[in-house]
Amino acid sequence: MRATFMYGPGDVRVQDVPTPTIHEPTDAVVRITLACVCGSDLHPYHSMTPSERGSAMGHEFIGVVEDVGSAVTTLKPGDLVISPFAYSDNTCPYCLDGFHTSCRHGGFYGSNGVGGAQAELVRVPQAAGTLVRIPSDVDEKLLPSLLTLSDVYLTGYHAAHMGRVAPGRTVTVIGDGAVGLSAVIAAKQLGAERIILMGRHTVRTDLGRDFGATDVVADRGADGIAQVLDLTGGEGSHIVLEAVGHMPAYEQAYGIVRPGGVISRVGVPQYESAPVGFGSLFGKNITLTGGPAPVRAYIEAAIPQVLGGEIEPGRVFDAETSLDDVAEAYRLMDSREALKVLVRP
Amino acid sequence: MRATFMYGPGDVRVQDVPTPTIHEPTDAVVRITLACVCGSDLHPYHSMTPSERGSAMGHEFIGVVEDVGSAVTTLKPGDLVISPFAYSDNTCPYCLDGFHTSCRHGGFYGSNGVGGAQAELVRVPQAAGTLVRIPSDVDEKLLPSLLTLSDVYLTGYHAAHMGRVAPGRTVTVIGDGAVGLSAVIAAKQLGAERIILMGRHTVRTDLGRDFGATDVVADRGADGIAQVLDLTGGEGSHIVLEAVGHMPAYEQAYGIVRPGGVISRVGVPQYESAPVGFGSLFGKNITLTGGPAPVRAYIEAAIPQVLGGEIEPGRVFDAETSLDDVAEAYRLMDSREALKVLVRP
Repeated sequence: MRATFMYGPGDVRVQDVPTPTIHEPTDAVVRITLACVCGSDLHPYHSMTPSERGSAMGHEFIGVVEDVGSAVTTLKPGDLVISPFAYSDNTCPYCLDGFHTSCRHGGFYGSNGVGGAQAELVRVPQAAGTLVRIPSDVDEKLLPSLLTLSDVYLTGYHAAHMGRVAPGRTVTVIGDGAVGLSAVIAAKQLGAERIILMGRHTVRTDLGRDFGATDVVADRGADGIAQVLDLTGGEGSHIVLEAVGHMPAYEQAYGIVRPGGVISRVGVPQYESAPVGFGSLFGKNITLTGGPAPVRAYIEAAIPQVLGGEIEPGRVFDAETSLDDVAEAYRLMDSREALKVLVRP
Repeated sequence: MRATFMYGPGDVRVQDVPTPTIHEPTDAVVRITLACVCGSDLHPYHSMTPSERGSAMGHEFIGVVEDVGSAVTTLKPGDLVISPFAYSDNTCPYCLDGFHTSCRHGGFYGSNGVGGAQAELVRVPQAAGTLVRIPSDVDEKLLPSLLTLSDVYLTGYHAAHMGRVAPGRTVTVIGDGAVGLSAVIAAKQLGAERIILMGRHTVRTDLGRDFGATDVVADRGADGIAQVLDLTGGEGSHIVLEAVGHMPAYEQAYGIVRPGGVISRVGVPQYESAPVGFGSLFGKNITLTGGPAPVRAYIEAAIPQVLGGEIEPGRVFDAETSLDDVAEAYRLMDSREALKVLVRP
């Protein structure tokens, strides 16, 4: 079968590999119907250490169950399923807490002998805990929105959930990428009174306004901070959803957050240390939260919202390629010619 | 009148200064009945830059109102009052949020022309918002516990409150100083099922057990982390209350916290940057919270708990000096001969 590998910065290739099979009784093999490229895939696209073996890419997909291991009793071949970007048993203490990305038997696609999802087929460990069925006769137009429940929309939702967005709150979203725009949808869903979107790509911030942003701030750094403070009567934003992952976004976050407020990060931090002392977080009683989204915890509640047309997160997709052309999908996203690209095997 | 100043590391002196008077219509002048030395006073005691002017010391007190400004209608001379360690108007947006330490008209004793509380008298700005009355005929034996509502007990309470301690939770308190022991009391009050106290001074950890600690871990670093993980079946602590402020305590905190858990800091950080990336907080969805305790937000609820004997945080005081001997109070706490020292003018 065909699958996507990255060998170094900018070097994405589709190649033939052995078709995945059941290894463990808890596995399933799924034939991918729809996949996509993630903003987080662009981090290695910029900076991965060149590798002769390559890295299997892709972690968001909808597909049809092809085969299941003997311990998988809740799924059968032919089921249409969504997979969270991390697999998990959905029964360990951490999963029961709602933090499936820390599952004791969990892991991530593209590592530890599990392939990527920018491929024709993929082996899914802990399939019964991981995969969530959707109706086989679902309107095909809804598939892009359902695909966002694999990662991007529910990552934005996780930011808002961990940030404790609630009615009456002012929320600022840093980043107009697909996760930032998803965070706007989620903040609106959770009742935020005011949603300030910080981003400078008009096409994207216009979509953000459609999703519920009440204000857009294009400037960054000190100017951006001053504008958000100005918009909030000098008080700052109750909640900041940081959907970028670079240090300037973090610094912007603690510059605009209101005393006692929350910074919720879902952009994978491209730094390990950051200011947290008296001059940044501590002095103002700022809460810092967030992490890899346990989308499995949220997916069942979100499916009916998509099926009912209440949310349309699939609007973040603005381009599509075939699997064989996946390198072009990366190029389009890297050059910002596309916001997020569907990949159809 | 006599007041305490620090001029450099280890250099604490009591001297004659002009008696404070009303400067603003919102001021009061209070005659101090009971004050004390704070663990945070030991930071400058170790490392302050020597100064010819000196720093006015002390921010915890109970006293009797001596005089009030024309705008102060809710207090009168003769009232017995507790002061939070920070003054605040109790009406600004941040105070209404419950974050009085960020009050727009607030500040701290010993700075900006306001004296310290290790003194005979002190001027209190924003007196109507700041000072909280207690019955003038209160049993004198309760005064030490009431004094802890000025800072130390309610700082421990703030840690537990921000950490969202709740029934069924496992809470680990790092630090067996007076704030750490106060955090044990607060965690117990908020219903924690298990309270692990990390500290190595047996006299203090024994008091911690009296206050509600169910386990004591004397080791630090990797050994201490291993023991807490062991005590929690390898799962980690839902909530970690960090009452030290030094980097090893922070590192210990993220080593023992359960995925999805909370680290709540009230030890004033003696660092500005710290690990917060994938390998420390982000990867495990850890929430970092805490800051200077807005004790004004909690004091009214805590007074009846002290008066009714429900909590006895005053047990953290194990020594007492006169105001003239305050240097000895610092020495006793610095050498760990005393846990916390009352100062009686």
